[in-house]
Amino acid sequence: MARQVAIVGAGVSGLASIKCCLEEGLEPTCFERSDDLGGLWRFTEHVEEGRASLYKSVVSNSCKEMSCYSDFPFPEHYPNYVPNSQFLEYLKMYAHRFDLLKCIQFKTKVCSVTKCPNFDVTGQWEVVTLHEGKQESSVFDAVMVCTGFLTNPHLPLDSFPGIKTFKGQYFHSRQYKHPDIFKDKRVLVVGMGNSGTDIAVEASHVAEKVYLSTTGGAWVMSRVFDSGYPWDMVFMTRFQNMFRNLLPTPVVSRLIARKMNSWFDHTNYGLVPEDRIQLKELVLNDELPGRIITGKVFIRPSIKEVKAHSVMFNNSPKEEPIDIIVFATGYTFAFPFLDESVIKVEAGQASLYKYIFPAHLKKSTLAVIGLIKPLGSMIPTGETQARWAVRVLKGVNKLPPPSVMIEEVNARKENKPTGFGLCYCKALQSDYILYIDELLTSINAKPNLFSLLLTDPHLAWAIFFGPCSPYQFRLTGPGKWEGARNAILTQWDRTFKATRTRIVQEPPSPFVSFLKFFSFLALLVAVFLILL
Amino acid sequence: MARQVAIVGAGVSGLASIKCCLEEGLEPTCFERSDDLGGLWRFTEHVEEGRASLYKSVVSNSCKEMSCYSDFPFPEHYPNYVPNSQFLEYLKMYAHRFDLLKCIQFKTKVCSVTKCPNFDVTGQWEVVTLHEGKQESSVFDAVMVCTGFLTNPHLPLDSFPGIKTFKGQYFHSRQYKHPDIFKDKRVLVVGMGNSGTDIAVEASHVAEKVYLSTTGGAWVMSRVFDSGYPWDMVFMTRFQNMFRNLLPTPVVSRLIARKMNSWFDHTNYGLVPEDRIQLKELVLNDELPGRIITGKVFIRPSIKEVKAHSVMFNNSPKEEPIDIIVFATGYTFAFPFLDESVIKVEAGQASLYKYIFPAHLKKSTLAVIGLIKPLGSMIPTGETQARWAVRVLKGVNKLPPPSVMIEEVNARKENKPTGFGLCYCKALQSDYILYIDELLTSINAKPNLFSLLLTDPHLAWAIFFGPCSPYQFRLTGPGKWEGARNAILTQWDRTFKATRTRIVQEPPSPFVSFLKFFSFLALLVAVFLILL
Repeated sequence: MARQVAIVGAGVSGLASIKCCLEEGLEPTCFERSDDLGGLWRFTEHVEEGRASLYKSVVSNSCKEMSCYSDFPFPEHYPNYVPNSQFLEYLKMYAHRFDLLKCIQFKTKVCSVTKCPNFDVTGQWEVVTLHEGKQESSVFDAVMVCTGFLTNPHLPLDSFPGIKTFKGQYFHSRQYKHPDIFKDKRVLVVGMGNSGTDIAVEASHVAEKVYLSTTGGAWVMSRVFDSGYPWDMVFMTRFQNMFRNLLPTPVVSRLIARKMNSWFDHTNYGLVPEDRIQLKELVLNDELPGRIITGKVFIRPSIKEVKAHSVMFNNSPKEEPIDIIVFATGYTFAFPFLDESVIKVEAGQASLYKYIFPAHLKKSTLAVIGLIKPLGSMIPTGETQARWAVRVLKGVNKLPPPSVMIEEVNARKENKPTGFGLCYCKALQSDYILYIDELLTSINAKPNLFSLLLTDPHLAWAIFFGPCSPYQFRLTGPGKWEGARNAILTQWDRTFKATRTRIVQEPPSPFVSFLKFFSFLALLVAVFLILL
Repeated sequence: MARQVAIVGAGVSGLASIKCCLEEGLEPTCFERSDDLGGLWRFTEHVEEGRASLYKSVVSNSCKEMSCYSDFPFPEHYPNYVPNSQFLEYLKMYAHRFDLLKCIQFKTKVCSVTKCPNFDVTGQWEVVTLHEGKQESSVFDAVMVCTGFLTNPHLPLDSFPGIKTFKGQYFHSRQYKHPDIFKDKRVLVVGMGNSGTDIAVEASHVAEKVYLSTTGGAWVMSRVFDSGYPWDMVFMTRFQNMFRNLLPTPVVSRLIARKMNSWFDHTNYGLVPEDRIQLKELVLNDELPGRIITGKVFIRPSIKEVKAHSVMFNNSPKEEPIDIIVFATGYTFAFPFLDESVIKVEAGQASLYKYIFPAHLKKSTLAVIGLIKPLGSMIPTGETQARWAVRVLKGVNKLPPPSVMIEEVNARKENKPTGFGLCYCKALQSDYILYIDELLTSINAKPNLFSLLLTDPHLAWAIFFGPCSPYQFRLTGPGKWEGARNAILTQWDRTFKATRTRIVQEPPSPFVSFLKFFSFLALLVAVFLILL
C-alpha cells in the first residue's frame, strides 16, 4: 500500500490529487516548479517555461456550476463564466479550505522520476528534484503526474511554404498576452481552436484587418445558449447524453450540425467543418459571427504560400498583405522527467489505461491525472480521475491484468467509431458523462438513478434531466459530500444570481393567462385572414 | 413652382435631397457647415459643433441590402453591416456617381432661414449663410432641412442627485471616441440605447469594471439573427409586417418578447423592458449577453445617488466605486436657424405633417427630411421622404388643407395606440414599411403586388415574403430604376458574398436524402426507446 505520494504540478489536477490523497490517508508531497499554485489558470505577463500560458482575457469555457470541484461550489456572486483572475482566486480558496498548501513545495522542479531498483516488488519511484539550485532525491511509494497538456507548443512551420521568407512578425499563440501588439496591423491567425478564435476576435477590435485561416473549419457555439442558459448546463444532461448515445453517429452529427447552424449557418460564414461526422473540439466564442458579419474578421481557407509581406490562400490568386502571423496550432504533450519505458508518447497518444495508468507497468503506482480533453469541464474530470487513481494507488481498487488494459488502450488508439453516439476525431477527446460514470462506478460513487427515483424523485429528476453538474459525483460512496443534494437543487438559483441584478415587477398573472389565450385565438384569426 | 432650393446639411438625407431636386429639374444649393460630406457618418477625432459625433467603432445597425439608397446598392464585397469608414466611402461614391458635389457649398453655416416679406404669395425664403467670416443672403423658392436629430445632447443632470459632488470624470456619450480612456477604470454607463450599450461593451474589454444602468430596460437583439441572417432582412418583410399589423398590440408585444427572449431571457440578464407593450427602440448589440454572462458588464437599475467617488443604485444599499460616468442619455433636436413660428419643437415633437411639412404654413415650401426614427434604415426613409417632398415643392403633388394636416399631427402627438400592430412609445418612431408605402403611394411609386403576381410572380414572391429592401421603391413611378428588379432578385447573393470565403464541398445529395430519412426513423426509434 502506497503511503508517500509525489505529485508533480499544483494546477487544478494537482490540487485535486493532494486533496484526494489526504482524504484517503496518504501523505502527498506536491512539487510545483513555479512560485504559486494554479497552473494554467495563473496569468503572468511573461511566458514561463514548463507552464501553460494564458492571455489576459481568458474566460472559462465551462460555466461555474459545471466546472467546480464537486464538493466546493463557486461563490454565488461569481459570474457564470469565470474570468481567469477569479478562477485563480477560487483555486486558492479551495487550497485554503482543504489545507492543501502545507503539502506543496514551490519553486521545485521535478528533474526525473525513475523506477527504484526493486520496483517490481515495491512499486517505488525515485524522484529527483531541483530547488534553488539544490538537487534532492527521495523515494516515493507512488507518483501522480499532473502537468497537463498545454506546455509544449506545436508549431509545424514546414507546413507553411515560404514562412522563412516572411519579413513580418510571427509567433505561436502561447506567446500571446495582450491585443495591443495588433494595433493598426494586418493580422493573420492560423488555426481556429478556442485560442485562435479568441485571438482573432480580440485582435479585430484594434487591428486594421484580421484574417482567420482554417483548413478544417469548426462548429462554433456561444456560451449564451438556448434562451441565454449556459451552454453546458443545457447540453450536458444525462437525458440528452443517453439520447445522443442511442442514435447512430451520422444522425447525431446531423442533429449537432442543425443545432450549431441555428445560431448561424456555418456555410454562409465560411466556417463549416470539413468533416461533419467526426467531431473536432467545439469552439466556444460569443463574438465570432458578429465580427464576421461586420467585416472585422475575414475567414480564409488554408495557406498556399507565405511571401515577404503577404500571404496567399488556397482559394484565391490574390495576395493579402500581412504584418503579423499568429500560429494557434495547438500543443503536443511530453513527460521530460519520465523515461520512454514508463510512458511513451506517439502521435499524440500515450498508452494509458483509462487515460491514467501506464498499461504495461508491473506495479500500478504511477498515475497521470488530467491528460484528457472531455467535451465538458476539466476540473471535475481530473478530480474524479484522482479519486479513483488514489484508491488504486492505495490498493483499495484493483486494476485488471495488463493484457486487458493494453487491449483497451490499443482499441482507443485505433479510434474506431462505434457507430453510435458522438464520434471524436482526436485521441484525447472523450464523452464526459460516460467517462466519469465509468470511474465513479469503479469506486462505488455513481448515483443510482433507479433507487433515487423511489426515495428522492425530485433529486432523480434533477439528475437525469438537469445539468450533469459535479455535485452528482458526491452523492454517495467514498468522498460523499453532505451538501451535494442541496447544491444540485439550488444550482439554477446560483446560475443567474450574478446577472438578475435589475428586477422588474412581472405583470399580474391572470392577465398573462388571458393574454396567452387571446394570443392563440388572434394567431388563428390572423393565419386565417392571411390565407384568405 | 419652386426652382431654387436651399438644402441645409450634406449628410445622408441632404445628399438624397440634392439628387431628387436634380432629377426633378430643380436647382439645389446645399449648405454644409463642415468641410466634407457625410454628416453623421464622417468620423473625426474631435467633436464638431452642430454635427453628429461618432465613436471610432460604430458599425451600421441596418444591413447593406436594407440601408442603401434605393438605386445604388453597396459594392458586393462590403460586409453586411458596414463600419463607419466604409459607409462614408459609399456616400462619396453616391455623390460622385450622381454628380452631387457641384451643388454643395462646404464650410458654410446657415445662420437663419426666414420667410420673405411676400411669403404668403411666393412662398420664398431668405437664407443667410456664413462662409469664412463672410455673411451672405439669398432668396430661395424652397428649403429642405436635413440636419438630423443627433447634434444636441440631452444631459438631464438634475435627475442624478449628487452628481455635482462627483469627483471623477463624467461626460455625454457624444464626447466618446475611443475606449482607451476606460483602461483599468471603474466605468458607469447611464442609459441603454444603442450608444450606451456599445460603449459599455467596448469599455468592458479594457476597464476594470463596467456597470450599465438602465431604468426602463430594453429588448436587445443581435445583427446575427435566425441562422445568422441579417436581422432586418428577416424581420422587415411585407408578410411579417402585415401579420404584425393585423394582430392586437398585446399579442404582437408578446410575440416580440418571445422572439427577443429566444436569444437570451431578458429577465435573467436584468434587461427586461419595464413596459412590455409599448416598444422603445430595439437595441442592436451582438456582444452584450456574452459580456454579462462572463462578468464583464454588470446591469444595474436607475441611480439613487451619486457620491464623490461612488454611485448607489436603487436596488441595493451598497456603494459601487466609480471613476468615470458616461451619460448615454440621448439627444434633443432643434432648428436654431428657424423661427419658432415656422417649426416649434415641444416635448420632443415638431408639428410636421408626415414628419416633413410644417402643418400651418400658408405655403408648403419648407420640408424637413430625416427627422424620424423608423424601425428600419434611415437612408431609404430619408430618400423616399425627399422624393415626395421635392414633388410637393415642385407643385406636382399637393398637400391636403392645413386643417387636415394639423389633425394628423395632433393625432400623432397624442401617440394613441391603435390597438393593433406594434405600439411605439416615442414620438419620432414609426412603422417603416407602412410609412414608406404611404409616401410611395403619394407619388405613384408603390409596387402593385396584385398586378405583379400576374405578370412577374417570382418578383412578387420576393417582394412579399423577402426583405423589404429599398430597391422595391424604384420598380415603378417617377424615379423608376431599371436595375431594381435584378437588385431584388440578387440581394441574397450579395448578402453572403463577403462571408462565404471558405467553401467546403457538400456531401453528395443522395446520401443526404438517405440520411434525412434515416435520421427521422432513428429519432422515432430513440424516442420510443426512451419512453420505454
